[in-house]
Amino acid sequence: MDAVIINMLKKPELKNPVMVCGLPGIGLVGKIAVDHLVDQLKTEKFAELYSPFLPPQVIIEGEGVVRMVKNEFHYHKANSDKGEKHDLILLVGDFQGITPDSQYHISHKILEVANELGVRRIFTLGGLGTGDLAKTPRVYGASNNIGLIRELKDGGYDIKFRGGGGIFGASGLLLGIGEIHGELAIDAVCLMGETHGQFVDPKSSKSVLNILTRILGIEVDMKELTKKAKESEKEMRDIKKMISMEKQAIEEAERGRELSENTASYIR
Amino acid sequence: MDAVIINMLKKPELKNPVMVCGLPGIGLVGKIAVDHLVDQLKTEKFAELYSPFLPPQVIIEGEGVVRMVKNEFHYHKANSDKGEKHDLILLVGDFQGITPDSQYHISHKILEVANELGVRRIFTLGGLGTGDLAKTPRVYGASNNIGLIRELKDGGYDIKFRGGGGIFGASGLLLGIGEIHGELAIDAVCLMGETHGQFVDPKSSKSVLNILTRILGIEVDMKELTKKAKESEKEMRDIKKMISMEKQAIEEAERGRELSENTASYIR
Amino acid sequence: MDAVIINMLKKPELKNPVMVCGLPGIGLVGKIAVDHLVDQLKTEKFAELYSPFLPPQVIIEGEGVVRMVKNEFHYHKANSDKGEKHDLILLVGDFQGITPDSQYHISHKILEVANELGVRRIFTLGGLGTGDLAKTPRVYGASNNIGLIRELKDGGYDIKFRGGGGIFGASGLLLGIGEIHGELAIDAVCLMGETHGQFVDPKSSKSVLNILTRILGIEVDMKELTKKAKESEKEMRDIKKMISMEKQAIEEAERGRELSENTASYIR
Amino acid sequence: MDAVIINMLKKPELKNPVMVCGLPGIGLVGKIAVDHLVDQLKTEKFAELYSPFLPPQVIIEGEGVVRMVKNEFHYHKANSDKGEKHDLILLVGDFQGITPDSQYHISHKILEVANELGVRRIFTLGGLGTGDLAKTPRVYGASNNIGLIRELKDGGYDIKFRGGGGIFGASGLLLGIGEIHGELAIDAVCLMGETHGQFVDPKSSKSVLNILTRILGIEVDMKELTKKAKESEKEMRDIKKMISMEKQAIEEAERGRELSENTASYIR
Repeated sequence: MDAVIINMLKKPELKNPVMVCGLPGIGLVGKIAVDHLVDQLKTEKFAELYSPFLPPQVIIEGEGVVRMVKNEFHYHKANSDKGEKHDLILLVGDFQGITPDSQYHISHKILEVANELGVRRIFTLGGLGTGDLAKTPRVYGASNNIGLIRELKDGGYDIKFRGGGGIFGASGLLLGIGEIHGELAIDAVCLMGETHGQFVDPKSSKSVLNILTRILGIEVDMKELTKKAKESEKEMRDIKKMISMEKQAIEEAERGRELSENTASYIR
Repeated sequence: MDAVIINMLKKPELKNPVMVCGLPGIGLVGKIAVDHLVDQLKTEKFAELYSPFLPPQVIIEGEGVVRMVKNEFHYHKANSDKGEKHDLILLVGDFQGITPDSQYHISHKILEVANELGVRRIFTLGGLGTGDLAKTPRVYGASNNIGLIRELKDGGYDIKFRGGGGIFGASGLLLGIGEIHGELAIDAVCLMGETHGQFVDPKSSKSVLNILTRILGIEVDMKELTKKAKESEKEMRDIKKMISMEKQAIEEAERGRELSENTASYIR
Repeated sequence: MDAVIINMLKKPELKNPVMVCGLPGIGLVGKIAVDHLVDQLKTEKFAELYSPFLPPQVIIEGEGVVRMVKNEFHYHKANSDKGEKHDLILLVGDFQGITPDSQYHISHKILEVANELGVRRIFTLGGLGTGDLAKTPRVYGASNNIGLIRELKDGGYDIKFRGGGGIFGASGLLLGIGEIHGELAIDAVCLMGETHGQFVDPKSSKSVLNILTRILGIEVDMKELTKKAKESEKEMRDIKKMISMEKQAIEEAERGRELSENTASYIR
Repeated sequence: MDAVIINMLKKPELKNPVMVCGLPGIGLVGKIAVDHLVDQLKTEKFAELYSPFLPPQVIIEGEGVVRMVKNEFHYHKANSDKGEKHDLILLVGDFQGITPDSQYHISHKILEVANELGVRRIFTLGGLGTGDLAKTPRVYGASNNIGLIRELKDGGYDIKFRGGGGIFGASGLLLGIGEIHGELAIDAVCLMGETHGQFVDPKSSKSVLNILTRILGIEVDMKELTKKAKESEKEMRDIKKMISMEKQAIEEAERGRELSENTASYIR
């Protein structure tokens, strides 16, 4: 078996397509966002990506039918009636590669597919872990092209660009591998929604999608995502509260115990 | 050395054979079941599977003679006098591949062997971990073919089919890899016996075999397995009781200590 | 770089040679034994084995000169004056392969070298962990040839042969890989000295060498090894005593504390 | 993708060049030293080294522009006005290979580049972990050439050469791989600055550079490095003090508690 296998179900004809990638990562921010796009837009799956570097398992779906873990490419033709300008390729999936080097190989193969289909611009969506619950998650950006950064700044989208830190996995490598393999260099932006890091965070996905849909000039029904965001927000707050209470209890117990022990050794 | 090596001792002529796979996994449910079939049926080993991705060791057998760790293929010719309908291939083994990707390679090779011998249907046997000791372990099923699921439902076998979760290792991959390599697609079912997950569980193996033998229309002497099941059941109950008593003791000690410490800091 | 690299310094002409392997393993029993043979016999290094699957480091030797980690092949020509019957190949080394599969590749390459030089019999030396300090470590044996086991039993050497357990690393694989690659099948015996398992154990090495030298009909000065064995035996006893005292102290402290806590919660 | 990829931006013409390597390792001693050389000398980047065995990530730099993680080769032409004698190649980088075997492959590729450019001598810089904060970190040396060691001893540089221990990663392998691949054998010295091991240690880098610049006959402005060294020294002392105080507090608490508990069980 090859390290990465593309099963091309149908090669779509696309006009200057834009690719949007939402593979699993911190807070599942990118995955939830692009899964939502696949659900809400008129899309068709046209290719599957398999790899022995995805976990060695099948997933059991409805009625007990199994399917291999994989990544999937869907396309969406621009609806000119709605003023949409770009054909889209949406990349979603169950997992990223297990070993570090397999992530290079998988991202390399994704770029080959993108290149073959004439992709002109890539948006990778992900999360930026802060350890905090943000009321309104901000969106940070990074790109392999300073011109693109300036274009987005000029466009007035509320994206923060700043140096420092790294981007792990496909969300980063899809921006970087063109530096090694020039023929695969495609202008690309990573949009990262602020997120706690230890919770699944559809609210952050929504922040990211709000900006992306404006950039792409598409309209997407946000009701489902808004609902998920509200539910998860409540859960996260409850959990955070519980953790904070537990922490306090532990600290008090600890203080009580220290007191008891110190006093004990003192009063005798 | 290749990643997977098949040593074909003899290529048997089989009629529409069914393959039954019982490699080590949760509770050793599948392994014990198919090892039992090899013991009770008239079988002959015809191929061995070796791999540098099995653990790097030999096993010492009777009188000190060593053998490599491996997987083994045995066949059983249908006994028409007993009304048996299928020639069988039984796959058993010491271990599964150590690295995740090697599990893909090994399952791929097993499917190549199955394909070469004209296998029409595969049953992989395994366990489904529940954390509980079931009085009568239920049997869950999953398949790569919805038609096969319906056939088994219609057959009145007590197999539960439902979505959710995954199947790891060969028990799952043998069902899934045909999705990647179409030429290796073989109708396959995974039968999973309910099991605690932290004990070797021949009782669950028996539940699975009871159903499988009915599906295959074969008769297998269950005495040995019933004996093992009873022994292990007693052991599991004893261990569970012990764990539960220990847990209680720890909790009481913990409560005592908290009391002592809290009181201490209070009364002074 | 290849997975295993042999640097053949000189291809010796050997008569029906016997290979003795002492790579690092439990208690360093095998390594110490064969290092001792290299020191005491008249030997010449004739080949080196390198691999990127040995640890990525150099070793600093006298005056600060570095050398790569490696395995080494030495040969010893039978001294007919002393009645020696076999030319010997001695295999020693710093490490075994880091990854499980690399151990297969390295053992495979060692067998290729052995085969090329006409080796007729292999002895791999190692330790058998018991968790105890034996007064006189017993020697266990295993072989890939039942005839060889019977020959050694008939020879009256005090080697225990019995089934059960496994042999890990080169000490086992050198016996087993011929089962996969028939052209590399060489009659081989693993001699394992009983050892605690958490100490370096030259005493166990001595037990093994006592038997091996009788089998091979060679005389080896044991003074150095006897000295090391005595030193390590004292150390092991001291450490064991210390551990046992510590354990007792901990248990007493634990009992005291339980008493104190239970009493505390009782008397109030 | 290949295991190691060299992107040669420009092949410089160099006269008997000396290569100085400062990849990340213990205390970042080597990396800080050679990064400082790149900053202070007139240099030009001429090649990049990429590998799927570096971590799968990009680094976000100023304004949000990303770049792949990599190693970089810079060159410096000898300034004859300042009496410099050697053209230099400076090797720096973000990371070393993640897997042990990838470190062999990367060092092998670095030696190929060095060989192609006619490098006559290599200095690898690193740290030697001692667990202590040295007032004036000493510099230890090791080499693949006893003649070179004697030359450096005769030169009166304060480098300590002694046997024992190992050198891990590129700092060691660049000295050793020529032993396996003779065509890549280049005289090489590893200079190791004494360092605590758990702190980033520019002070140790300075010790190493003080000696290296004398050996190479180059003058380098040390102001920046001296400043960093002072800052980090203060930090390290503060942290060490804090750790030592914490340790004392824990020990006292522990003693208090033992006292309390022992007394408790005694007085009742």
